[in-house]
Amino acid sequence: MSKGGKSDQEEGEENMAAWLVGLNTLKIQPFKLPPLGPHDVRVGMKAVGICGSDVHFLKALRLADYVVKEPMVIGHECAGIIEETGSEVKDLVPGDRVTLEPGIGCWRCDLCKEGRYNICPDMKFFGLPPFHGSLARQIVHPAYLCFKLPDNVSLEEGALCEPLSVAVHACRRGNISPETNVLVMGAGPIGLVTLLAARAFGAPRIVTVDVDGNRLSVAKELGADGVVEASTNMQDIPKEVETICNMMGAKVDVSFDCAGLSKTMSTALSVTRAGGKVCLVGLGHNEMTVPLTPAAAREVDVIGVFRYKNTWPLCIELLRSGKIDVKPLITHRFGFSQKEIEEAFETSAGGGSAIKVMFNL
Amino acid sequence: MSKGGKSDQEEGEENMAAWLVGLNTLKIQPFKLPPLGPHDVRVGMKAVGICGSDVHFLKALRLADYVVKEPMVIGHECAGIIEETGSEVKDLVPGDRVTLEPGIGCWRCDLCKEGRYNICPDMKFFGLPPFHGSLARQIVHPAYLCFKLPDNVSLEEGALCEPLSVAVHACRRGNISPETNVLVMGAGPIGLVTLLAARAFGAPRIVTVDVDGNRLSVAKELGADGVVEASTNMQDIPKEVETICNMMGAKVDVSFDCAGLSKTMSTALSVTRAGGKVCLVGLGHNEMTVPLTPAAAREVDVIGVFRYKNTWPLCIELLRSGKIDVKPLITHRFGFSQKEIEEAFETSAGGGSAIKVMFNL
Amino acid sequence: MSKGGKSDQEEGEENMAAWLVGLNTLKIQPFKLPPLGPHDVRVGMKAVGICGSDVHFLKALRLADYVVKEPMVIGHECAGIIEETGSEVKDLVPGDRVTLEPGIGCWRCDLCKEGRYNICPDMKFFGLPPFHGSLARQIVHPAYLCFKLPDNVSLEEGALCEPLSVAVHACRRGNISPETNVLVMGAGPIGLVTLLAARAFGAPRIVTVDVDGNRLSVAKELGADGVVEASTNMQDIPKEVETICNMMGAKVDVSFDCAGLSKTMSTALSVTRAGGKVCLVGLGHNEMTVPLTPAAAREVDVIGVFRYKNTWPLCIELLRSGKIDVKPLITHRFGFSQKEIEEAFETSAGGGSAIKVMFNL
Amino acid sequence: MSKGGKSDQEEGEENMAAWLVGLNTLKIQPFKLPPLGPHDVRVGMKAVGICGSDVHFLKALRLADYVVKEPMVIGHECAGIIEETGSEVKDLVPGDRVTLEPGIGCWRCDLCKEGRYNICPDMKFFGLPPFHGSLARQIVHPAYLCFKLPDNVSLEEGALCEPLSVAVHACRRGNISPETNVLVMGAGPIGLVTLLAARAFGAPRIVTVDVDGNRLSVAKELGADGVVEASTNMQDIPKEVETICNMMGAKVDVSFDCAGLSKTMSTALSVTRAGGKVCLVGLGHNEMTVPLTPAAAREVDVIGVFRYKNTWPLCIELLRSGKIDVKPLITHRFGFSQKEIEEAFETSAGGGSAIKVMFNL
Repeated sequence: MSKGGKSDQEEGEENMAAWLVGLNTLKIQPFKLPPLGPHDVRVGMKAVGICGSDVHFLKALRLADYVVKEPMVIGHECAGIIEETGSEVKDLVPGDRVTLEPGIGCWRCDLCKEGRYNICPDMKFFGLPPFHGSLARQIVHPAYLCFKLPDNVSLEEGALCEPLSVAVHACRRGNISPETNVLVMGAGPIGLVTLLAARAFGAPRIVTVDVDGNRLSVAKELGADGVVEASTNMQDIPKEVETICNMMGAKVDVSFDCAGLSKTMSTALSVTRAGGKVCLVGLGHNEMTVPLTPAAAREVDVIGVFRYKNTWPLCIELLRSGKIDVKPLITHRFGFSQKEIEEAFETSAGGGSAIKVMFNL
Repeated sequence: MSKGGKSDQEEGEENMAAWLVGLNTLKIQPFKLPPLGPHDVRVGMKAVGICGSDVHFLKALRLADYVVKEPMVIGHECAGIIEETGSEVKDLVPGDRVTLEPGIGCWRCDLCKEGRYNICPDMKFFGLPPFHGSLARQIVHPAYLCFKLPDNVSLEEGALCEPLSVAVHACRRGNISPETNVLVMGAGPIGLVTLLAARAFGAPRIVTVDVDGNRLSVAKELGADGVVEASTNMQDIPKEVETICNMMGAKVDVSFDCAGLSKTMSTALSVTRAGGKVCLVGLGHNEMTVPLTPAAAREVDVIGVFRYKNTWPLCIELLRSGKIDVKPLITHRFGFSQKEIEEAFETSAGGGSAIKVMFNL
Repeated sequence: MSKGGKSDQEEGEENMAAWLVGLNTLKIQPFKLPPLGPHDVRVGMKAVGICGSDVHFLKALRLADYVVKEPMVIGHECAGIIEETGSEVKDLVPGDRVTLEPGIGCWRCDLCKEGRYNICPDMKFFGLPPFHGSLARQIVHPAYLCFKLPDNVSLEEGALCEPLSVAVHACRRGNISPETNVLVMGAGPIGLVTLLAARAFGAPRIVTVDVDGNRLSVAKELGADGVVEASTNMQDIPKEVETICNMMGAKVDVSFDCAGLSKTMSTALSVTRAGGKVCLVGLGHNEMTVPLTPAAAREVDVIGVFRYKNTWPLCIELLRSGKIDVKPLITHRFGFSQKEIEEAFETSAGGGSAIKVMFNL
Repeated sequence: MSKGGKSDQEEGEENMAAWLVGLNTLKIQPFKLPPLGPHDVRVGMKAVGICGSDVHFLKALRLADYVVKEPMVIGHECAGIIEETGSEVKDLVPGDRVTLEPGIGCWRCDLCKEGRYNICPDMKFFGLPPFHGSLARQIVHPAYLCFKLPDNVSLEEGALCEPLSVAVHACRRGNISPETNVLVMGAGPIGLVTLLAARAFGAPRIVTVDVDGNRLSVAKELGADGVVEASTNMQDIPKEVETICNMMGAKVDVSFDCAGLSKTMSTALSVTRAGGKVCLVGLGHNEMTVPLTPAAAREVDVIGVFRYKNTWPLCIELLRSGKIDVKPLITHRFGFSQKEIEEAFETSAGGGSAIKVMFNL
């Protein structure tokens, strides 16, 4: 809570955060907050999830073209409680429970101005170097990117609005509706939320494909109408395409490739009906060898999906109304101590039964 | 001209056509016309162009999944004069000069009913086995696929409405407008008509890329703002991307890959701006090795382009108004004799200076 | 059932139909079927609903520009059982239970060819003069407009695919999704199916407005989140707009005007948020006095909705999956006798508690 | 020019502006600039046009819901020269000639975030109370809303990017392309720029309608394919619809109502083809009596058009390339003195031959 206009931090309680300080090395260290602007809020973080990209930065100090050159606070799937509000903030007050959209567009480039701020080249994004993340006791963020949670949506669910947003954006880009039969390639966290979101957008039939039987069981529990266990062998594609078609019992209108590998993309391109769409969500292989031409000759479009835009209000509504339940995705919980953050990232990286690993701060 | 309701054919003058009778073998032989239905017209063919796919059938007796199993009349780029009309035909009369759309949708499948008849799985298309083509003295065709030519548009230009339609459909799929800077990969016939169509759709800047300097000269003459001579070496892509950007002097909003090779597609995917589109028009390589993921991460969509739909009225208007001039594309003309058809296909296949080879019947 | 290739009719059992023979006069009389074409089927009608337009033709012998000049078989909401199939029909066999799409596009005009066959100027539509309707023991119809019913969907529900199709087309035109808060003006049959369809398309909040409290109770039972009883007084619009906003508890993204009156349209235009849509579904007043300019200044678009296209497969899926239950709409059932058809139309015309009146043949 | 980091104003030369101080009363008075923010620029105004809305404010002290309660600087169509740049401004330097987009979105509301900032409810717009306008020696504005002019585009043309932007936005909303035959209702300044923009977007046929023969002559000179002189009598609509159709010689695909009156809108709704669009651009009558239902039954959509978004780069390109020439629209020029501003507004208000009245400062 705000105490007479002074922040907790000012009163001497140091703000602590999880810093990525080197390869495979995370340290809880003090994190000095920037000054609170008139349109900003200070949020006490309560729930932060670990994303595959966080693990990737820890293990490689880079992801695509983003390189960690300086120590950086990690994390970006988060929710918390408003502690202080800037002078111009009207819709939030201390005590409000909020989920945070992690990226700040520049609002000056062509892409921001036409509403595609998700691909703004000057975006400042939590935990994407050189910008600090949100696995911290407190952070400062623009108020317009903090969204109030209804009473029946927990802070953990709030943190999961971030991965869910990827799925919601993918469903919008794929134009999923009650007349779209959906294929989901991959049953990792993003594949699973895509399954949930496609269902919420009305998809009558959803089939999920993965190489891992355990993940497929989870997909089945979360509502997949059918699951197909695939190999990693390109030669098996024709056979697997047939299995997918049989399992669907209808044409595949839209496929989401949540893995992004030559094989998953080749399968998706082959199985999607003439005039359908393949949405490329997962960023696996950089270069792919895929049968793009026969797909193009059936006017199957390949739709790029990057992050999300304007998704938080919808995610919150889907959680509030019970159309989507993300709670089963949380398989592990950790507190915010040096030992626990190490364990948590190990758990997330280890594969096995971990789907979503969550910090409770 | 129709003579008292009886067709020329009935009067004993045998209809002759160019039959593909075996590998590399074309023969002018009699071609018995089907009966004239109430909504059909009989057209005396006057101008027929040779398409790369015709040459491909001649050289390989197949194209993609289409195999020539029986002798078949070849050809599909055509225009002629109405000779007889079915009892229900209202808008055409004998003597009308018309250009013909070569594909007949089934109008019963989902794709036809939603207006995407170009990807109808049951389409009957001139010269695509097992359907006969239009390099014949006479053919019978549905009246609704025959479009009257204005006085100032020649029959040869009418025949070129077919390749031009591919370009127009591509420009529609790419949503080309006065605010779209366009890259065209390939300066063969389809690349060249795409350049012309993109200009007619308002594209302010168009750059064409090819490996052949002569073709690039033609592109330049047809109005390309810049041309780039590329190698066939994948390693040169980064350098060529830079050259293209400099030549464009602006962002590439939409790329048309009119070749459809791993290299052309990789270049297009790399050079197109965030939020842009790559339209895959040329059907070169079946499988491609391409950097699809980095493109998807910038939400560059890959749009499949197959043939055309509802393009003839627009093509005619573009020719009538002079916004497009296709006449310079016709580099060679032949008559309709056994010797000439052989020569004509040789010329078309030979590369060299041939762009479009045209029969005058 | 087909009996040895001969139709029932050929065997001398005369086909009977309900003919509109004059103002307020319906007669059951023999109806000679047209010959069965190769792509046609003969259907034994089993369930036929009465639409407001049928009643209108009975009471006025005209509707908009359509005038009944000759005796005409009435009816167009229908389902039945296949009795005979044309020689080229592949997907249907005698005994199949089917629901019928009543309009046959010309498939030659620009609108048909671009997939907007619902506004084809040459459409042949059941019971729209000069074309006969389907309230008959048997009718002949193109096979591609007859859709098989799953086992768990009744013939009566099949007949209701017709009004439901209007709602589905409206929801597509309005782009209804899980992020669209919906206002429905009118709780007659079309207003009610629009409510059901909007819910199936994911609309999180739906408010229905009508002048009739009983109809609003039905809307509430069918799942409206809120209902507002309105007056017929234009002066009450500002007050009612406020009530609607409060009832919605959120912005109105899309409004469906299922009445089509100056007052309903004015209310819809006033209450819909900037950037939203008003879909005009009901065809009430021909000329309207409405605040179009202030709506345009908020870029509220007015979307015309006429009939439907390509809706039957989706309607069947929505009924099969239980996402929509239309059975509560059927308030009255009648058999197919002279006395009953008179009673049935009186019931439908009488207002009162009648929503949908159904014939079982 | 910037002089050692100090603005002209700081050096004691008072900035002067045209203040609307009361009904029909404009006064040139000192106008103190706000401090220059890091992303702002100070612009020396050189060309400012008079818009109909400026005149309306002068004559009524209000427009729609906007009321002038305090003295306010007027004007919003403007171009000038950069005099000073904020510390973070990278793309502009003193001396740059720029055209200014007059509205500043909030970039926090849903509409801004989805790219529809033109209908942002919190927009700050030049000369729309309570925000000051740009008819001043100097103004301060965000750099991202100031666009550099190419050498061959004058400052006066730069000022006309504002009305041209309305037309460009209308053409985008109407989806004008080389296959769209266009009707423009109204030949005032907005009707005329809409004609120019529709031509630049490729419209093959454009017919303009007005009640004023002189304005129609201008339309004809600016390239209208046909002009129709209409009455103000509603009864003449059927006859005028026929005249328009004959003049067009083709179907009307999209109509722009640049007047916004019951009669112009009724004509547009009646004449536009099934599946076409009527874009409501002019904000004349608040309430209209129009045949909306028959239009909706042909799925003619009414598209609201309000101001513009992201139009400046395209306008500049259209002027640079010569696709549009707005210079003929400037009929009168005035200097910036008390006497001249009074005369200028009188000229603009007076109708007659005035199209666009321009100040040169």
